[in-house]
Amino acid sequence: MRILVQKFGGSSVADRDRMLRVREKVLAGLSRGYKMLVVLSARAGDTNKLLALANEYSPNPDPAECDSMVSTGEQISTALFAMLLKDEGIKARSLLGFQIPIITDDVFMKARIRSIDGAAIRKHFERYDVLLVAGFQGITEDGRITTLGRGGSDTSAVALAAALEAEACEIYTDVDGVYTTDPNICADARKLDRISYEEMLEMASMGAKVLEIRSVEFAKKFNVVVHVRSTFTDTPGTIVTQEDPDMEHVLVSGIAYDKDQARITLASVPNQPGIAAAIFSPLSAANIAVDMIVQNPGLDGVTDMTFTVPRKDVSKTMAIMEEVSKAIGSKELYHDLGVAKVSAIGVGMRNHAGVASRAFAALHRAGINILLISTSEIKISCLIEEKYLELAVRILHEAFELEKANYNG
Amino acid sequence: MRILVQKFGGSSVADRDRMLRVREKVLAGLSRGYKMLVVLSARAGDTNKLLALANEYSPNPDPAECDSMVSTGEQISTALFAMLLKDEGIKARSLLGFQIPIITDDVFMKARIRSIDGAAIRKHFERYDVLLVAGFQGITEDGRITTLGRGGSDTSAVALAAALEAEACEIYTDVDGVYTTDPNICADARKLDRISYEEMLEMASMGAKVLEIRSVEFAKKFNVVVHVRSTFTDTPGTIVTQEDPDMEHVLVSGIAYDKDQARITLASVPNQPGIAAAIFSPLSAANIAVDMIVQNPGLDGVTDMTFTVPRKDVSKTMAIMEEVSKAIGSKELYHDLGVAKVSAIGVGMRNHAGVASRAFAALHRAGINILLISTSEIKISCLIEEKYLELAVRILHEAFELEKANYNG
Repeated sequence: MRILVQKFGGSSVADRDRMLRVREKVLAGLSRGYKMLVVLSARAGDTNKLLALANEYSPNPDPAECDSMVSTGEQISTALFAMLLKDEGIKARSLLGFQIPIITDDVFMKARIRSIDGAAIRKHFERYDVLLVAGFQGITEDGRITTLGRGGSDTSAVALAAALEAEACEIYTDVDGVYTTDPNICADARKLDRISYEEMLEMASMGAKVLEIRSVEFAKKFNVVVHVRSTFTDTPGTIVTQEDPDMEHVLVSGIAYDKDQARITLASVPNQPGIAAAIFSPLSAANIAVDMIVQNPGLDGVTDMTFTVPRKDVSKTMAIMEEVSKAIGSKELYHDLGVAKVSAIGVGMRNHAGVASRAFAALHRAGINILLISTSEIKISCLIEEKYLELAVRILHEAFELEKANYNG
Repeated sequence: MRILVQKFGGSSVADRDRMLRVREKVLAGLSRGYKMLVVLSARAGDTNKLLALANEYSPNPDPAECDSMVSTGEQISTALFAMLLKDEGIKARSLLGFQIPIITDDVFMKARIRSIDGAAIRKHFERYDVLLVAGFQGITEDGRITTLGRGGSDTSAVALAAALEAEACEIYTDVDGVYTTDPNICADARKLDRISYEEMLEMASMGAKVLEIRSVEFAKKFNVVVHVRSTFTDTPGTIVTQEDPDMEHVLVSGIAYDKDQARITLASVPNQPGIAAAIFSPLSAANIAVDMIVQNPGLDGVTDMTFTVPRKDVSKTMAIMEEVSKAIGSKELYHDLGVAKVSAIGVGMRNHAGVASRAFAALHRAGINILLISTSEIKISCLIEEKYLELAVRILHEAFELEKANYNG
């Protein structure tokens, strides 16, 4: 039995006409000899309407009841789509989270999938050629409905593909794939034929727009080939898959950026053991995600500690740092909102030297000052003044010749 | 454990304010020491909207998919209501058909309940004081969602009361009980304190407005005491219960009527064995419900056969009768739409003679001609000209002194 998983988002199933277009994709899969498992989101807007309704009734809606309500969005879209397939004489039916079942933990509104009964689904394929599965939802061991959080239908699709050992998981969206960088900023941005899971995870800032990041982690873990493509064209999109030797020939696969950065500096901190813990433990306790961290020790026994946090957390962070600053004897505390992060990402970096220096040189030539640097095995990130961000993206894109196709998928 | 079942219809849960009013009824039950099982319909209009949506997508929506969709109405109302109770600090949760489970057959859109796991519900009462059960829905043995057809929430409530051996099943509606007849026709109509299951079933023409008839059959079968009452007042309504000796003192409990009657006559039919079968078998095969039947044999070896059918079925009936009429050699075939049925109903008739003649005499005094008569153990029905219907209802109501309270519940 050859199984293909397809996932369509809310805008692809927003009304009858769009569903009819989606039906063509499903029929095309059938005619290629596949059994089709089709994961649907709720019709565009339905989930938000349901959440708004819950908030209208209760100042603090019970999460378990919220999930029972909100899961009806996919219950409706899958039933409607099943009707459209049956009208074409296709053997099809809807399957809700509890009917498969898709077992999750009981963290309502952002549950995580624990297991999926793949054998039960295969059994349904004895009677049906297309199964319409409600995305975004699951059920706890003791029978309560859960939802997986925003973008959860991507995760449903990848997890189902893993459970079924499907040939591929096609994620249909309103963009036609993953780009080397944001085409709105850089006209030379090019659609990637392939990208590795690791790169996709690091590309979060752009990637999140096309594929929910948790689903990439899932795909990586279970080695599911994900094909991100457009509902509205037939052209191939981007294959997200395991790193392969071809990919390593390329130094950099894409340029990502993140404007949601604020820089905090504690200046002239006495450089002694335990300082870092004194600073970051209370932030972690306050659930503030610190991104870049740089410690700059001077010769005089003091050090500057600089880090970035999401902009929404700046006032909370500053309040905490006021306390910390007094306790550890920092001379100065200040923050800066006018910063942004630009990153070059590529699995090829693992085996090639000189990538970082090429990036720094390119930025330097353009007169862009680097405020912070952080690196990982497959990523180099620079914090710069926000006003230079678009320029920096274009310069790095050009420096690594990303406008040229380097390999084919 | 003392359990009280309450059921609230769509208009009682139409919006937040109405739900808050309903919450008072539930809290009142709690404060009387009951564990509360509360059955809710979908918010007014939701079910119709969902059905309209299905018909917008498909000319002939798949019934199983329809049920999966339409059941979301109660999924939403129960979740919202659970939130409102939790906001008051009440231990409450929603329960959907599949979560209990309420097992039904697989006749989608008009399924019948097969079994309810009462022990599982009692187990939930160890953790919760109020269970909000989605009415109208169930699940097949193999896990597909079903709905019970129009008014099915009444049946859900009565069936749950039976499964739990609840003290009573309170059905809240927008009327305050069952009346001796339609108050819109007869100003003297009086609310009944009590009525027997059998009478309630015969009162279908008025009863159906306050209580779905299938739920009465269920209540009768499992001896569930049903209390029909108003959501908007605190006054007691009508108790539907087993016949008791008190009730038998009353000859007639109510006057029902039915305007959906058309009279068909086959005149001068040769009176020989098999004539009735020749006439009614094809009607039954065409799924036409024949109500009253009268055969009037003359001395000349011929007979007139007269019967009534619902008005919507008149043309189909006449087409069938044209054929039959030729085959059996009837001299004349005609129909009459200007007729209506009026009925006097009461369990007391079983033990008292003279009820029929009192009814006939009253109609005769008012100059109302009786076209057909049919009787059962607890009902006398007369077909009359439709223009006299309202008058006939008032005359019979007066003849049996229904404006006076005859017994107290």
